[in-house]
Amino acid sequence: MKVSEIGEFGLIELLADIVDKSKNPQNASWQQLLIGIGDDAAAWQGDSSIQLATTDSLVQDIHFHLNITSWEELGWKAIAANLSDIAAMGGIPKYALVSLALPGELEVEYVSSLYQGMAQIANHFGIAIVGGDVVAASKVMITITVLGGLEDKSALTRSAAMPGDQVAVTGYLGVSAAGLRMLKQKLDFDVETTRLLKQAHLQPVPKVKEGQILLHQGVRAAIDISDGLIADLAQICKASQVSTIIKENSVPIHPVVQANFKADCRQLALAGGEDYELLFTATSQVIARVKQAISRPVTVIGEITAGMPGQVTVMDAVGESIPWQQGGWEHFKSQA
Amino acid sequence: MKVSEIGEFGLIELLADIVDKSKNPQNASWQQLLIGIGDDAAAWQGDSSIQLATTDSLVQDIHFHLNITSWEELGWKAIAANLSDIAAMGGIPKYALVSLALPGELEVEYVSSLYQGMAQIANHFGIAIVGGDVVAASKVMITITVLGGLEDKSALTRSAAMPGDQVAVTGYLGVSAAGLRMLKQKLDFDVETTRLLKQAHLQPVPKVKEGQILLHQGVRAAIDISDGLIADLAQICKASQVSTIIKENSVPIHPVVQANFKADCRQLALAGGEDYELLFTATSQVIARVKQAISRPVTVIGEITAGMPGQVTVMDAVGESIPWQQGGWEHFKSQA
Repeated sequence: MKVSEIGEFGLIELLADIVDKSKNPQNASWQQLLIGIGDDAAAWQGDSSIQLATTDSLVQDIHFHLNITSWEELGWKAIAANLSDIAAMGGIPKYALVSLALPGELEVEYVSSLYQGMAQIANHFGIAIVGGDVVAASKVMITITVLGGLEDKSALTRSAAMPGDQVAVTGYLGVSAAGLRMLKQKLDFDVETTRLLKQAHLQPVPKVKEGQILLHQGVRAAIDISDGLIADLAQICKASQVSTIIKENSVPIHPVVQANFKADCRQLALAGGEDYELLFTATSQVIARVKQAISRPVTVIGEITAGMPGQVTVMDAVGESIPWQQGGWEHFKSQA
Repeated sequence: MKVSEIGEFGLIELLADIVDKSKNPQNASWQQLLIGIGDDAAAWQGDSSIQLATTDSLVQDIHFHLNITSWEELGWKAIAANLSDIAAMGGIPKYALVSLALPGELEVEYVSSLYQGMAQIANHFGIAIVGGDVVAASKVMITITVLGGLEDKSALTRSAAMPGDQVAVTGYLGVSAAGLRMLKQKLDFDVETTRLLKQAHLQPVPKVKEGQILLHQGVRAAIDISDGLIADLAQICKASQVSTIIKENSVPIHPVVQANFKADCRQLALAGGEDYELLFTATSQVIARVKQAISRPVTVIGEITAGMPGQVTVMDAVGESIPWQQGGWEHFKSQA
């Protein structure tokens, strides 16, 4: 079988299984491990607090296109995607390592700009870039590892959703995907709209503080929206062995997306991806506390049920289930 | 200027400079940082002990060729290279994250074998593979991050060599480069020689325990031999702002390399790279203690002097300086 047939998620499951079957449970690293392959970040018990680590790669012409992003924006976004994974655990990001694969004929000036963008977001979130690697390759590829810690005794995970929980999301969705469409199709909007859509796609802001607030207020299950609302919600349901029913009308579509992408705004918000908002589940009491503590909008969009593990049902205004095509971003398969 | 003109080391210096100039020294991560960009691994003060992190990428057709390595061997080597960086700090490796870029048409079976190789070395060295990422790309690229810790209060570094120190190396050199040559040129040797050369190149054993022994016995300056003896020694001298004079005749060339690559054995041992032995400097008293404590051969090959920073002089049997062409492995430049 080919990698494109099994797909990204199938492959990750297979690899996690190989690692799990071959591990030596006597080994101290395994004994201290709290969360391994399959969540937004790995977590283990450190000397006196929980440590987090996550890694993410961006590949030229797959994750980014040099005709629509500046090098500085690319540097920002590469780090942002990793910080968002730490945010989804409720963690505090601390250190980053950067591995760059670059063609030899690339201008040094571009690589400098890339690093300026990384340094900018690193400073903004108080993390230090402490190492990395530079290798030659025919296309640009950026792999970032971010290490962090937790102030709490446990992390937000994908696997803690419980039947009866409400499903909620921070902020408004669809802006990043709308921005990508604008940039690719060279759509023309007013200055302010153009700027908002462009920044949402090219310089997303990870919800680091928000993740910590969720955790402090008692949320246990969360993921960041990177692959798309439905796809990421399916990940929570699969990991937690639960189902969910969400109301399409409740999904907070960004007003700018509603106004400018009327026909497709639902698709952009439900399947677009890369909004880097936080999607979480909790009791209604906990969600009420979160709304008090957080300065960002929090919208309840549905609830967790005890149905088929991993199933996401989307309901329309009159309570009819909408046939939903899997529209999240999955590598390999999405290329076909 | 192009990346190929400034070269790998020039680019790393430039990027380290951007990070350094843009950092906010008030930030806790920077305050706890002990060793940043430019050593084998980064090091920072954790809750109660020093933490280490290193990352390394292997790119298809540059670092490895699928016609001479099995997928399992490749998995082993990708982790080994990172463990060797932790060894060069005197550290204990603990966790690994694996980021894979793969063509969609690759057989899943190959990726499984790759992971089997990784799991094998992970178990051997007591580390846990805890996360990663899988993305689509036209060529295979493997980026590993290894995290570890230190039992001691300080790490082995490249920058601690002092004039008057002796320069020493563990084990015998040139075997990995000889193995690569054998595999590329399809050279024919007896079974035992073939096996030894092949394993040295495709399944190198990082000197993790040896690094810890060096540190416990009082060594302060070390690097692992990945780019080649001379190139790596130049890194120590540059970072420590010292020079070195080594005796070509003292370099411990592996007997199998001496016997089978008569004409080129010196070149293979001094410039070949990827032997993953440890190169270190210390007083003669400390080196005497190391020799007692370690089960691997340790050979003194020269001394550190107060000359031009970064200069490596190689002397022949009668004390004449040998004109030495830079032969270490540097990306970008080495492609030209």
